[in-house]
Amino acid sequence: MQRMNYQNHGCPIRFAAGVLGDRWNLVIIRDLMFKNRKYYGEFLTAGEGISTNILANRLTRLETENVIKKSLDPEHGKRYIYTLTEKGKALLPVLLSMIEWASVYDAATEMPSQYVKRLHEDRLALSEEILANL
Amino acid sequence: MQRMNYQNHGCPIRFAAGVLGDRWNLVIIRDLMFKNRKYYGEFLTAGEGISTNILANRLTRLETENVIKKSLDPEHGKRYIYTLTEKGKALLPVLLSMIEWASVYDAATEMPSQYVKRLHEDRLALSEEILANL
Repeated sequence: MQRMNYQNHGCPIRFAAGVLGDRWNLVIIRDLMFKNRKYYGEFLTAGEGISTNILANRLTRLETENVIKKSLDPEHGKRYIYTLTEKGKALLPVLLSMIEWASVYDAATEMPSQYVKRLHEDRLALSEEILANL
Repeated sequence: MQRMNYQNHGCPIRFAAGVLGDRWNLVIIRDLMFKNRKYYGEFLTAGEGISTNILANRLTRLETENVIKKSLDPEHGKRYIYTLTEKGKALLPVLLSMIEWASVYDAATEMPSQYVKRLHEDRLALSEEILANL
């Protein structure tokens, strides 16, 4: 029998919950990880109905947590882009596990079956492809 | 290049966020999965500072989502116990990925290094041991 017996201080689930235990954070990280979105306006119009003050709040929080970084867009000197840091990119396995779970339990899932198949059979190569595009 | 191109309807991350995108849900699922807690009073006194109305709200939500189930305790006929459903148990890989991520990025992590080592090298057996105790 293998149980975690740490105290709540330093609890890894609570630590992870500080970043992932918020639906808007998850949607923003999803957009950065899988949907090639990087501009404020792209997050705002991503179809999730996020309000501009909540979006600004979550971007600031994620930046403070060092999950994302904000920098000047090299292609448009006056625009900002948001990208995942190494700490943010390292969340990929968490998100892939969420996707796999949803593909089983969401009756309305629109995940292509080919993608789910790769998640099961070829996750390492899939992960490398995703990370190579970030 | 492998990108998800599904629409937001049926988005697996949004689906998962409906359960996991809440820090209290995560803490309750953690207690059920790893800490052998099953009574209302155990969640309440788990040291996270959850209030009784938030706890009741989240337990109801998780039950509605079919992630946990509430039943009479076979050992104490008038007490209720909460247990993970199959859908809830299937979240184990998500939580293990969170633990692995936190063990790298939380400077204050109290995860035993032996546990982290097993997460890397022996995840399947570790998962089976945890599930066998649920």
